[in-house]
Formats: sequence, structure tokens, C-alpha cells
Amino acid sequence: MGSTWIGKRIRLSIFGQSHSAAIGMTLDGLPAGMTVDEGTLQRFLNRRAPGRNDWSTARREADAPEFLCGLKDGRTCGAPLTAIIRNKNVRPQDYVNLKTLPRPGHADYTAELRYHGFQDASGGGHFSGRLTAPLCIAGGVLLQELSRRGITVAARIVRIGTVCDGSAFDAPVSDKAFPVSDDTAAAQMQEAIRQAKEEGDSLGGVIECVITGFPGGVGDPFFDGIESRLSQMLFAIPAVKAVEFGAGFGAASLRGSENNDAFCIGADGQIATVTNHAGGILGGISNGMPIVFRLAVKPTPSIGKDQQSVDLETMKEETLRIQGRHDPCIVPRAVPVVEAAAAVVLYDLLTEGEA
Amino acid sequence: MGSTWIGKRIRLSIFGQSHSAAIGMTLDGLPAGMTVDEGTLQRFLNRRAPGRNDWSTARREADAPEFLCGLKDGRTCGAPLTAIIRNKNVRPQDYVNLKTLPRPGHADYTAELRYHGFQDASGGGHFSGRLTAPLCIAGGVLLQELSRRGITVAARIVRIGTVCDGSAFDAPVSDKAFPVSDDTAAAQMQEAIRQAKEEGDSLGGVIECVITGFPGGVGDPFFDGIESRLSQMLFAIPAVKAVEFGAGFGAASLRGSENNDAFCIGADGQIATVTNHAGGILGGISNGMPIVFRLAVKPTPSIGKDQQSVDLETMKEETLRIQGRHDPCIVPRAVPVVEAAAAVVLYDLLTEGEA
Amino acid sequence: MGSTWIGKRIRLSIFGQSHSAAIGMTLDGLPAGMTVDEGTLQRFLNRRAPGRNDWSTARREADAPEFLCGLKDGRTCGAPLTAIIRNKNVRPQDYVNLKTLPRPGHADYTAELRYHGFQDASGGGHFSGRLTAPLCIAGGVLLQELSRRGITVAARIVRIGTVCDGSAFDAPVSDKAFPVSDDTAAAQMQEAIRQAKEEGDSLGGVIECVITGFPGGVGDPFFDGIESRLSQMLFAIPAVKAVEFGAGFGAASLRGSENNDAFCIGADGQIATVTNHAGGILGGISNGMPIVFRLAVKPTPSIGKDQQSVDLETMKEETLRIQGRHDPCIVPRAVPVVEAAAAVVLYDLLTEGEA
Amino acid sequence: MGSTWIGKRIRLSIFGQSHSAAIGMTLDGLPAGMTVDEGTLQRFLNRRAPGRNDWSTARREADAPEFLCGLKDGRTCGAPLTAIIRNKNVRPQDYVNLKTLPRPGHADYTAELRYHGFQDASGGGHFSGRLTAPLCIAGGVLLQELSRRGITVAARIVRIGTVCDGSAFDAPVSDKAFPVSDDTAAAQMQEAIRQAKEEGDSLGGVIECVITGFPGGVGDPFFDGIESRLSQMLFAIPAVKAVEFGAGFGAASLRGSENNDAFCIGADGQIATVTNHAGGILGGISNGMPIVFRLAVKPTPSIGKDQQSVDLETMKEETLRIQGRHDPCIVPRAVPVVEAAAAVVLYDLLTEGEA
Repeated sequence: MGSTWIGKRIRLSIFGQSHSAAIGMTLDGLPAGMTVDEGTLQRFLNRRAPGRNDWSTARREADAPEFLCGLKDGRTCGAPLTAIIRNKNVRPQDYVNLKTLPRPGHADYTAELRYHGFQDASGGGHFSGRLTAPLCIAGGVLLQELSRRGITVAARIVRIGTVCDGSAFDAPVSDKAFPVSDDTAAAQMQEAIRQAKEEGDSLGGVIECVITGFPGGVGDPFFDGIESRLSQMLFAIPAVKAVEFGAGFGAASLRGSENNDAFCIGADGQIATVTNHAGGILGGISNGMPIVFRLAVKPTPSIGKDQQSVDLETMKEETLRIQGRHDPCIVPRAVPVVEAAAAVVLYDLLTEGEA
Repeated sequence: MGSTWIGKRIRLSIFGQSHSAAIGMTLDGLPAGMTVDEGTLQRFLNRRAPGRNDWSTARREADAPEFLCGLKDGRTCGAPLTAIIRNKNVRPQDYVNLKTLPRPGHADYTAELRYHGFQDASGGGHFSGRLTAPLCIAGGVLLQELSRRGITVAARIVRIGTVCDGSAFDAPVSDKAFPVSDDTAAAQMQEAIRQAKEEGDSLGGVIECVITGFPGGVGDPFFDGIESRLSQMLFAIPAVKAVEFGAGFGAASLRGSENNDAFCIGADGQIATVTNHAGGILGGISNGMPIVFRLAVKPTPSIGKDQQSVDLETMKEETLRIQGRHDPCIVPRAVPVVEAAAAVVLYDLLTEGEA
Repeated sequence: MGSTWIGKRIRLSIFGQSHSAAIGMTLDGLPAGMTVDEGTLQRFLNRRAPGRNDWSTARREADAPEFLCGLKDGRTCGAPLTAIIRNKNVRPQDYVNLKTLPRPGHADYTAELRYHGFQDASGGGHFSGRLTAPLCIAGGVLLQELSRRGITVAARIVRIGTVCDGSAFDAPVSDKAFPVSDDTAAAQMQEAIRQAKEEGDSLGGVIECVITGFPGGVGDPFFDGIESRLSQMLFAIPAVKAVEFGAGFGAASLRGSENNDAFCIGADGQIATVTNHAGGILGGISNGMPIVFRLAVKPTPSIGKDQQSVDLETMKEETLRIQGRHDPCIVPRAVPVVEAAAAVVLYDLLTEGEA
Repeated sequence: MGSTWIGKRIRLSIFGQSHSAAIGMTLDGLPAGMTVDEGTLQRFLNRRAPGRNDWSTARREADAPEFLCGLKDGRTCGAPLTAIIRNKNVRPQDYVNLKTLPRPGHADYTAELRYHGFQDASGGGHFSGRLTAPLCIAGGVLLQELSRRGITVAARIVRIGTVCDGSAFDAPVSDKAFPVSDDTAAAQMQEAIRQAKEEGDSLGGVIECVITGFPGGVGDPFFDGIESRLSQMLFAIPAVKAVEFGAGFGAASLRGSENNDAFCIGADGQIATVTNHAGGILGGISNGMPIVFRLAVKPTPSIGKDQQSVDLETMKEETLRIQGRHDPCIVPRAVPVVEAAAAVVLYDLLTEGEA
């Protein structure tokens, strides 16, 4: 039942397989009267949609959601909000051998262990990155509401393979085709992706996300701390293998006198901190500073090179060559997914105390 | 309600404040008939208990749990298991000024925002690292059961400040007073802690945890994936700011052809992987390889140096000097806490499908 | 978020409004490999579907679900199972005045209080009895599985208005157009409904449900007891106002020596009870005897007679005459809904301890 | 894990066995700053405490809770609130034969099925009615808060055995030793209990609970409707076998034109209903009228008469004679338990939308 998320005020169910009739999501618990601008939502979804550039899979899907219920005159009506996307550009023949010859780095083998052969292996089935589209519908709706409250959720790429962008995150990058702050780094990253693709290989990367305007005093200690709630959601994004908040792993090398964020009176006369190594969270609760986290996306496991696998029927080691259409680097398309995931959790925590 | 954890088969409630009458925990949902060896549990708790060496706080607490219910003749009886530890060595006078002058890096300020002055600020209240003792009771009980099933949960320190231990984790370190694999690195780490303490400062570090013997096919996609469930729990440990699985952040720099774990036939004739960059988890589900994760612990925020804070009543910046007894480095005592936290989640996932 | 049900192994989300594009459900957590016979399911759904006889609304809907995902070759694949039913026979013009002039006995007024005018009032919106169709899809799928395990869930009408059927429930009634054991009582009940309809009025009734073949030892004390879990679900069925187990309210008039079910050795050599006043449940846990409950369905609030209401805009008392197509008695169509609701809960409890 | 209740804002864990070292409860999620008057709480608990009159068990327990944490200067501090009651007046020798010879009407047999012989059978173990004391601590704390908000939760006995009280509930009865409105009926009820006791038998009854001052617009459709949430909690009270809201089972005999509550303008100029057959709830949501429910309590299963049981070891039918101290009628002591149970649920729903 891992596809149903239980928040404090909202519950999110995502459903579908890569090659099922449709994929979709239900968002339950939204207050009535929340505006959903479908145009804005579509533009957000387009940032994730496949088939639009060199570093994305050649599978093209319009990813235009149909809202089945929960909306009335462009506003939520208190009933669950359900939207679906029909799968169209499906080529299941590309995946016929995956069930007996699992792809390294994919969930083919663990799905076999878990579902005993009954899983829908085609295109990765329910484990497909395609399921991040429903997550983006949910997050896209909530980003609109957060935005109306002055809260900005903005992610960017800070690393692709070995190319880093060390520049400050001082301007939005969501309008860029390749969401990186520094254009020189961006060019190098794209070149690295192009080269990996040429070699039938793939690259991973690191995404940073910054949330501004989020009020202090939200969250709870321990199991419902913001880091706990956010990380649960972020690790639900396929290919994410690491999450850190504020100084993160870097904090381990700092001394307390360096890592502690001294309190000060900010420009607005309110309490702030001089630095933000805490990433805006202390004791699981927001302190009013920007919430900052980074996560690692592993390189796309589907590559064009020969790989060693084991045939599940013969139990013999075999060489696997993957067919199908795949992203040489999933990181750019993961950027809006990270924003969506963060929006779902933060909206939920924020509204815990609202009528 | 962040102090109640909702697993699939068990629910864990931890309670208490640093200076309340008692701290404790209730573990609900355990099957009847599980053996609880109190001696083994006490030895496990002693690894976390304060006041035993140079790098720990001078506050001494026996940390001997009293089981109030749930046990009969040394076995669980199906009813909730509740244990408490009375707080004894309490010096609340050390904390009188914390409520108006919040300590940088602590939850004093966010507690004020969240609880509007009604929080128990003494000793950090409910946010105190002392609350990891109840977590260790729960985890200690479950580690015994995992062990009976051939599952080992073993953590060690791999970094303190800038001192790293790059050696393999090929032997248990739980019997060592300072749980590091390489003794040379261990000596350097202890020296670094001693030096930081002398300077009134503190150090953080990185802990690695490896779980062996855990069967494949456990877990779920998305929100209930093992990484999601584990990270939620790990970030609940105070001072943890980063969590990574397998190759973690390092995966971002690898190519797909490097990061993918090729399948092979293992020594036992079963399917295994040649490498384990996935840390034993694919698509949220275990693949039978060791589950491996690392986490960063920030340096103890309580330091002896002067720090800048803001008086919440006068709204003026003030210099704070922290009294009280504190660990110059919490990392060694956090090692069993990490094992306990992992045990709670892994036991819960493992038994999802058991009568 | 009341439309998402959180079981122990499964989570059920129902969505849709009476006049939205579609209604539907997602069932998450089903094991892979469970057979779903769509023909059997459709026959089950037909028992609830409207427009088929004198005592049902004239609104005709085929109620043929489309499975969007979660199925592969007629079996569950481990991914969430989602099915939708398009709404077709919609006449929203019948409901234009409901938002300002709430119908007595309906949720129009409470929806207004809860959703502040943003609710979809048309046809009762999300509160419509039409939402029991998705519940029947979920329950219909699970009834098939329970049946394969030798567990029968059978409901019948035991009262319509003042007409009772006091006969034993010794033969299934699911094939009868009017699901009553005693045919004489059935005829009287139908006559009572016909007469109420003629007078522009409506009738309620009592449904009894008996589950046989359910093993003992399932359930938990207190909040997860079978009675607690079942009643939560049963009261979610619109119009249900009372639920009792075994002797129920009648137990209040018995002495302990009468109400206690003496233990005996049953025909099969196993432990049984001589009577079954407990309705198969003691301490929240099944004892192996049939699980028996009854529930009261209030008379359909939509009647043809003039009723007094208050105009929410003018705050003046007004006379309301309801248009639209309505059941003079919802009880017959509620019978399969009760079976479906019970199946969802009992399947979930039964499989708590299964891989 | 049925002893942990998951509300929307609060989570309640109750723990202990009839003869364990202690029983208790943890209430997590309370806002900081809520006043807890321990004197008022003790008076409330005394209404449930045993050993105080003829119709109660002879086991005397002071039932004075010790608060371990969560309170500071008489107010909640945001941390979990834990209280325990030490068990003192314990006579386990009375229960030695219960494990092999289960008592009819008790959970002895189902506990055996569920816990395979590891259960603590002494005094009913975790299934004991004694566990309603922790529930009363939780409810007693929340009743104080509801009272401060002008919400009254008042229960009374309306039936003992065959003696009914048909009078109106127009004055509180909580100060009466025997909580019945009509004193003549009360005397008859007590006489009936005395007589049953004399004959070594027991009686059940019906309790009615009325909540006034609860605002409209609280609750959710379907699974989180007020009836669903309340009934889940009420059936968690040992011995409760039936729950009805408003007209309840009686609604089944009414016509729609009789059962519908016409809307009107109330004395205060606000919308009200002329009657209250709905018991204050429509579509799962409160309508501002009093919330009214009744529940049936079965006769105490522990009686002095010989009963037939089956020896679980020899699998032979045997005659059982119960030793121990038992209530001939649990109904009077259940009255505050019902109020407590209702308070927990209603407080939780009420504060869903509060900071």
C-alpha cells in the first residue's frame, strides 16, 4: 500500500503502470474553494514531460490530465480531487524479456521477489518514473496554493556527473530549458549528458531545493519532524538515493562553533539566523529561515551498453542489452518532481492547524 | 503527535522530557511470545548511556528501564509493552535562562514558536537527546528478535570531524568502547574530540550502518519504500541532518554503467549482485544484499564558547554562555541509537506479512 | 480526507460526485496474483445499480467499471487497482435550488457549513448514495477472494418500515430481486414501499449480515477490534444510523446467564459456542462462530411531500418540494453495499498476518 | 496494535493488564498550554473507580494517576502526556484456571486463539475493563477542555435489564451516585441489580449520551464521518455491542416525512431543526444540534452461576465456576467511560482545523 501517502490533512493516492490504460492520482482532504489553474498546472507538468529535448526519452506523452472529480468552476469542492492521464505512446514489445532477465539498477528483480511473477513488468510497471507525473499533478496544484501564500518552492540542478554548479541560487531557473543557475556549468552539464548518451551510458546528479516564505513554528519533534516527513516523500521519487538538509553531510566536518547558526535581528526586525546550516529546521520544526535540502539522483539504470544479469528461469548469468526509449539523464526532468514532492509535504504540514 | 510512530505492524510511542519524572516508551503490536532478555537489553542501553567516558556528558543516569506491562515470564504477552526510566540526575537550574535566550543549533527557539511559551525548556525538554533512550529500549527489544532470525544490524563511526575511517566493515565494533573499525583512526578521532572539548567546542561525524541477513522482497514502492520508511525514522534522531543509501551522494558522480549492480549467481547459488551501490534496495524493496546507509550527525550544539543569540523578551541580541553538562561529541553514543532506529523499521517491514 | 480508508494491509480511496465526469475507487495494497472476475463483479454491482425496478430511482446507470490499472491478465499485479464509472444519466437542473434551500435529512446543509459554498451540491455531490458504487467495486473484488477462502458474506433485509421478517437466515437471498428470506414478508415489504411511493413518502429498514467461515483469532483489542473496524466502515454507508453485533441492543435486557455463550465441542470436534449472542466476536477478536451484525437504514430523505426548510440566503423559512429521481426505499439496494463494506474490512483484518 | 488510537490531531495509547505493575496512557498531540486540573480529573475518575458501592466489584483501587511527563505547572507543554496508575489490589490466584477453561462471554478464548498461550490471562489481562481507567484519564483531560469551550458531554443510564427510564435528559446526572434521570426508575434499576447479584447473575443496560454546544460543520463524509469515528471508539469499550445515533434503529420504522428533521430558525436566530432524529449528524458532519447516541452494554459475563466451558488442554466440556470479584452490573461505571470515549473523538475532530 506504498502508493497511498497519509499526510496530516491530506491523503494522496497515485496509481497506474507505465503501460496501463491510465495513470493518475487522488488527493483527498483539500479544503473547498482552492483555485486550480489548469493552464499553470499544464506548464508545470510540461517541465517534467518526456520527449521534449535531447536529454529526455524519445517517448512522447502529452501528459494532459483529465480531472474526473473534485473540481467545480475551477475550484476544489471539498470532495477528493482525481485526475488521470491516459497512456498513449506505449511500446510494450520493447520489454518482453525483462521479466526473466532483470535489468541491473531497476526494480525488475525486486518486483519479481515481491509479486511472484504477477507484476506488470512492461516499461517498469508501477515502478516506472512515469508515476512521477501523478505526483506532479498533486504537487502542481499545491504549489499554486503555496505561491498564493507567498511561499516559493524552487529546485535546480547543482551537479550532473562530475560537473558542479557552485553558484548562488539567487534567481529562479524554472523557465530555463535546463534548470541550472550558472549558464557555463549548464553548458558543460549538457555536453556531459550528450557524450554519455553517445556512449550508450547515463549520468546522475544532485538537485537542490530551497523553500522561502515558509513560516516558523511548523512541524513536530521526532517522527513527524519536517526532515522526517520530507525525506519519506523525497525517497519515494525513483532514483533518489540521498537526502540532506542544510549543511547536511558537510555538517559532520564542522565544529559546533562553526555549524551553529547564531541568532540575530533580521532586516525586518524579526529574529533570524546569521547563517543557515540548519536548513531552516531545528528539532523538526521550521525556524522561519529558508528550508534547504539537496538530494542525489542516481544515473538512469537503463543504458545502451551490454550488462550482466541472471535469467530467472534458467538461473544462468546472461548478457542483457536493453531496448526501449530512455533518458540518458533523468535529473533535469526530476527537478519539477522534487518541487512537487516538497509542495505536498509542506502544504500538508502548513495546514495542519487550519480550519 | 510526532512522538508516536505508526508502523505497519507496530506502533511506537516515546514520551518524557529531559527533566520530567520519567521518560519511556510503549510498543504496541508485538506478537505474543517474543523473548525479551533484560540483561542483553541493559548491555545495549549501556552503549548509549551517558556519563561513562571522556566524550560523554557528565550527567550520569543508570538508564535501567522498568517494564510496566506487556511482559509475562520474560516474553511479550500480546499487550502493549511499556517501559519507563525515572529521571534522577537532574539539574534544571542550569537551564533557567534558555527560554528567553535560545541556544543556537538547539530547538529552544522553534519550541517557543511552536508551543508559545508553554514548552518545558529545561534540559531541552522533549527535544533532548535523552529521548533516544526510549527509542533504544524499543530497538533493543527488536534487535534481539532480528538476531534470532539471523539478521544483524551493525553501525560504526566512519568520520569524526575531519578524521575518516576508510576501512572495510568486516568485524563488529559494538564491543569497543569507541565503535570504529580502524584503531588508528579511532585514536585520532578521540584525540580530536578531546581537543575540541578542551577548546569548549564540539564535533560531528558520520555513522554507517549495515544490515545483513535481511531477506529480499520486503518493502513497497513509493511512500512505503524501505528508504522512505528508514529515512523518516533516522531523521527523527536529534542532530541527524543527512541520510544516504548505498552509493548515496556518490552515485551522482557515477555513470550508469558504473553504478548499476550487475546480477550474478552468488556463492550460495542464489542471485546476488556483483557490487552493492544500491545499498540492498531497488524500487523501495530489498534485493537480499546487505542494506547499507550512512547518516551525518551535526556537532553538538551545546558548546562552551560564547555565542550570539537574541533575547525573546527584549528582542535584543545578547551573548549566551551555555551552562550544563554536555557531550563534546554525540556521535559515539548515537551509534546504538542508529541501530535501534533501523531495527524498529526493519522489524516492522519484515513482519508485515506474518501472522 | 474522509474518503480514504486506511486499513492494515489495504487502503481504499473512493472519489467522485453524483454529477462529476466519473466516480471511482483505488484499492492499494492488494497482493499480486489475486483473480478478479469482471463478470462476477458486474453481477454483484448490478444488485446495487439503479433504475431496475419499482423501488429504485428512475436514474439508469450501467455502472460498468473500467479498470485503469492494477490488473494484468485478469489478476492483480501488486500495483494499486483503480476503476472508474463514467456518470452519464445526469440531470443537474433538478438540483439548482438545493444549495440555498437545503433538503431535510440530507447533507446539503452540513456540506454548506463544511465547504462554505464551494461544495458541488448537484445530486448531493460527494455525499450521494451513488458513491456506494465504488465501494461495491472494492468490496466485490474482495468478496471473490473471501469466497475462494470459504468465507461467505451474506446480507438480507429483515425489516422495511414496520414489516419484519423473523425467519432464520438459512438460505442465500442474493439471487432474489428483493433480498428477503421469507417470501410472504417480502411481498408485504414491497407493498409497503409501493404505498409509500404512491404517497410521495419513503421507508427505511434493517439489514442483517452474516459472515460464515471466518477463522477465529483475527482482530485486536480496543480500537482495532472487529466491531470497531466494522462499525467505522458501516457508518460510512450513507443513511446508516445504527449498528449492532450479535444480540446487540437485545443483550441489554438479558441476564449474564442468558447472554453468555457456553462453550461446547462442535460437530467437527472443534470448540464452538452453544448460542451466538456475541455475534462471533469477543474482546474484539473473532471466535470462529459466524460474525453477525444488523444495521438500520433511515428512510430516504428525498420525498415528494412538501417540507419545511430555511433559505440560506434570506434566512427565511420556506417550503421545499424536491424534484429529481429518488428511491422510495434505499434498503434493497443497500444490501450488496453492506456486503461490500463488510468484505473490505474483513479481508483486511484476515490478511493482516499474510505475506 | 489495537491499543493505539490514531486521531487527526491526537494519538492515544493505552497500556497495561489487570494485574501488571501499572496501567496507563499516553496522549500525543495536545497543544501546549491546555490546563489540566488534577482535582477535577480525580473526581471524574472516581465515578468509574471500583469498590465504592453495591453494584461494583469489591476490588478497591484508588485509581490516582501519576503524570510522568507532558505537564508543566498544571498545563500541557506540547510533549506527550503520560499518566500511569499502579495496580495494587491484585489477587491473581483467583484466575489460575482461566487459561485452560475460558469464561463464556469473556475474551479468554479469543485471547488464546490470538496469542497462542502467551497472553496474560490473569484478571482478563489487557482485555480487562480496568483498561477503561486510562481511557478515562485521556477523556477526563479533554472533557475539561471541551467544557471550557462550552461543550457538554453528558451520559446517563436509560435501561438496566428490563427497567427503562423514558424521561427527558434535561438535567445533569453526573453528581448522582447512580446516574439516571428519573429517581423512581433508578431505584428499580438498583433493585434489579441487587436481585441479580443475589442470584449470582448479572445485568446489562443502555447508556445515552448527549453532547451540546458542539459546532456545526465538523466532520467529514464517509470513513471519517462523526458516526464512523465515534462508533470505532465506542465499540472499543469492553462489553459494548450496539451503537445508534439519533433515532437509530427506530428510524427504520419511520417514514421519510416523519424522520426528516425540518429546518427552522431557532430561538437564537440561527438555523436549527425542529426535531433531532439525525442525532446532530448529517453526511458525517455535525449540524449544530445536540449529538445524541445510545449504546448497549451487555451483562457482565462474570457470574456466580455454574457455566459450561471446554478445557483447552483436554478438549472436554467442563463446568466452570468463576471466582474473583466482579460487578453484577458494569453499566453505572461505564457511564463516565462513555463520556471519556466521546470526548476523545469529539475533541480530535473539533481541533482538526486549529493551530
